[in-house]
Amino acid sequence: MRKIGILGIGQTRIEEQWDKSLREIGGEAALYALQDAGLEKVDALFVGNMIAPIADGQNLLGVYFADWLGLWKKEAIHIEAACGSGAAAFRAALMAVASGEVDSALVVGVEKMTDRAGMDVTASLATAADADYEVEQGISFVGINALIMRRYMHEFGWKHADFAPFSINAHANAMGNPFARLHQRITTETFEKSSMVATPINLFDASPIGDGAAAAVIVPAERITKHPKIVVSASSAATDTIAVHSRKDPLHLQGVYQSAKRAYQTAGVDPDEIDVFELHDAFTIMAALSLEASGFAERGQGVRLGLEGEILPNGRVPICTRGGLKARGHPVGATGMYQIVEIVQQLRGECGSTQVDGAAIGLAQNIGGSGATVLTHILQKET
Amino acid sequence: MRKIGILGIGQTRIEEQWDKSLREIGGEAALYALQDAGLEKVDALFVGNMIAPIADGQNLLGVYFADWLGLWKKEAIHIEAACGSGAAAFRAALMAVASGEVDSALVVGVEKMTDRAGMDVTASLATAADADYEVEQGISFVGINALIMRRYMHEFGWKHADFAPFSINAHANAMGNPFARLHQRITTETFEKSSMVATPINLFDASPIGDGAAAAVIVPAERITKHPKIVVSASSAATDTIAVHSRKDPLHLQGVYQSAKRAYQTAGVDPDEIDVFELHDAFTIMAALSLEASGFAERGQGVRLGLEGEILPNGRVPICTRGGLKARGHPVGATGMYQIVEIVQQLRGECGSTQVDGAAIGLAQNIGGSGATVLTHILQKET
Repeated sequence: MRKIGILGIGQTRIEEQWDKSLREIGGEAALYALQDAGLEKVDALFVGNMIAPIADGQNLLGVYFADWLGLWKKEAIHIEAACGSGAAAFRAALMAVASGEVDSALVVGVEKMTDRAGMDVTASLATAADADYEVEQGISFVGINALIMRRYMHEFGWKHADFAPFSINAHANAMGNPFARLHQRITTETFEKSSMVATPINLFDASPIGDGAAAAVIVPAERITKHPKIVVSASSAATDTIAVHSRKDPLHLQGVYQSAKRAYQTAGVDPDEIDVFELHDAFTIMAALSLEASGFAERGQGVRLGLEGEILPNGRVPICTRGGLKARGHPVGATGMYQIVEIVQQLRGECGSTQVDGAAIGLAQNIGGSGATVLTHILQKET
Repeated sequence: MRKIGILGIGQTRIEEQWDKSLREIGGEAALYALQDAGLEKVDALFVGNMIAPIADGQNLLGVYFADWLGLWKKEAIHIEAACGSGAAAFRAALMAVASGEVDSALVVGVEKMTDRAGMDVTASLATAADADYEVEQGISFVGINALIMRRYMHEFGWKHADFAPFSINAHANAMGNPFARLHQRITTETFEKSSMVATPINLFDASPIGDGAAAAVIVPAERITKHPKIVVSASSAATDTIAVHSRKDPLHLQGVYQSAKRAYQTAGVDPDEIDVFELHDAFTIMAALSLEASGFAERGQGVRLGLEGEILPNGRVPICTRGGLKARGHPVGATGMYQIVEIVQQLRGECGSTQVDGAAIGLAQNIGGSGATVLTHILQKET
């Protein structure tokens, strides 16, 4: 594939943006990205979004934003892969530029979730599970993840408090990120004493929803003259079954494993060369399983990386350096683009107190459903 | 862009398929396409769908179908562009194969609309309009098109009966298509005496919804050995404003004009070289406006092509040769793929009584919203 670079990034703070419409939130992040890129127009717009058709009664989201942004006549499309919509839109855009059909693209991940009168957020999130064979049984999306976590604890002998470091690290890192949803340092005690959501997942195992958008402008790498030059050295996508009960081993994220393996091959790097990893910690159990299937820990040992401090910004595998889904927030269809934007910030050295020293290779991994579709991207700083 | 060919096609009949689930309908068309292509697997799946997230509470439609089809581990994605979703998914797949990221792709356009208890079809279709500035005012999607048609009749002096040939041609052509929703020959009298939907659009100006799916398998053209070899000689997408009231001239489909113009340039053909044109006749007025903006008639004169018999299978610009949206049916997100499949059938010479003699170059044009996003594809038979 033709090498693609990231020319500009933009993001809004994740919060309850009741005073802004869906189009203003997505438009704002898009305009920041265009400004950062130094461009007024691009050839095409790719929008990642999960719930606007349900929550806002708005489809045709490509045109919806192109219209607002003044990208008149330009191609514009909406990509949906549940919570993986952001990175899925990014990958579709990469392929479009790589094909030569367009020379520049703007990718926006956007979601507005907090003030939707009459919308049941839990029901909307359940659209990421199998409607016929999971949701129909009455299980919620967090319920599915709770079953996976319970099985993991049983199988490998971990107790609930062992997951605390994932949440503590995420919250600590978000303190230095002005775009994060939560700015609240927590302790093991906060983690252990919080309200239960679906046993054993409690409030601090789970990521908060929010309103927000993140965006990037991509062009062929050779067109980029600014320093540092950030390029996409691998993009890959893989799937697993949609229903968790169809999997031979529900504790192995096959989609993560496949997409990470392909990404490493394409970029020609090993896991130990990754300087920073923005993973999909929708729940603490997902952080553990993602670390394992991405090659950073043995089966059942992902939790150990947290306990041993390896996931901290100065650890062996820094994760959630801007707060992760847990504390930066998880505006579902936007999350994948926040991860891309944050990796770019790390490679540019813009992360202040959570800057990973000498970060040159970053991994972003976005998951849709309970590990059902996985997008893995490797970004590198070219010197 | 690397030249892409169509290796296989499949479709289901459009009807009220109450005995089949969404996944069975889409899966069936997909399996027919794989069988026609002589392949068991492809590298990636692209799904075009508009209303399943609303109607079925099912997102993550890429994985949903990949799982059912046994495309385990494969990349799978859902593209939404309202009624243009089918061709938008086709274009995304073309760019994926052209980029070299995947070597083969399956594209499925699918929709299940007729037995969705509790779903308001009119409200679902209105998600293709601007939720804030059109729908909020109480107008329906057909209402928007009715305003355009009324203005057109006023501006150019046409009367309602002048639109009858579009509907009569579509219904006559569907008689020979076993996959069509309606098999009912109509006359000018039927057309004129039918129930009013939104003045001046009556039942025979409007296309019927339905349950159905159409699919195609695409690969790099050089890999195709079968005859006739069908290649995609142009793919283009363009947008207009989402709300019709924002347009300088609501009677000129700017998106159609732009995307058709680019497609002609890419393929190196003129409108008069097009042998068959599957256009987006969601309403008779859209057929007239599409003919005009695509270069087959002057502004305000699209209706004349119908009156003069030019749109018939043996006319100068044969349209809706398999029944069009009007009589083949309009399962919204599937329609774009039905058009692609039908053009392939014409180029293969499989259309029986409505076969266009010597058809070698076909145009397929799919619209999302009221002309808001337009996908134009030119397919050619290589000899």
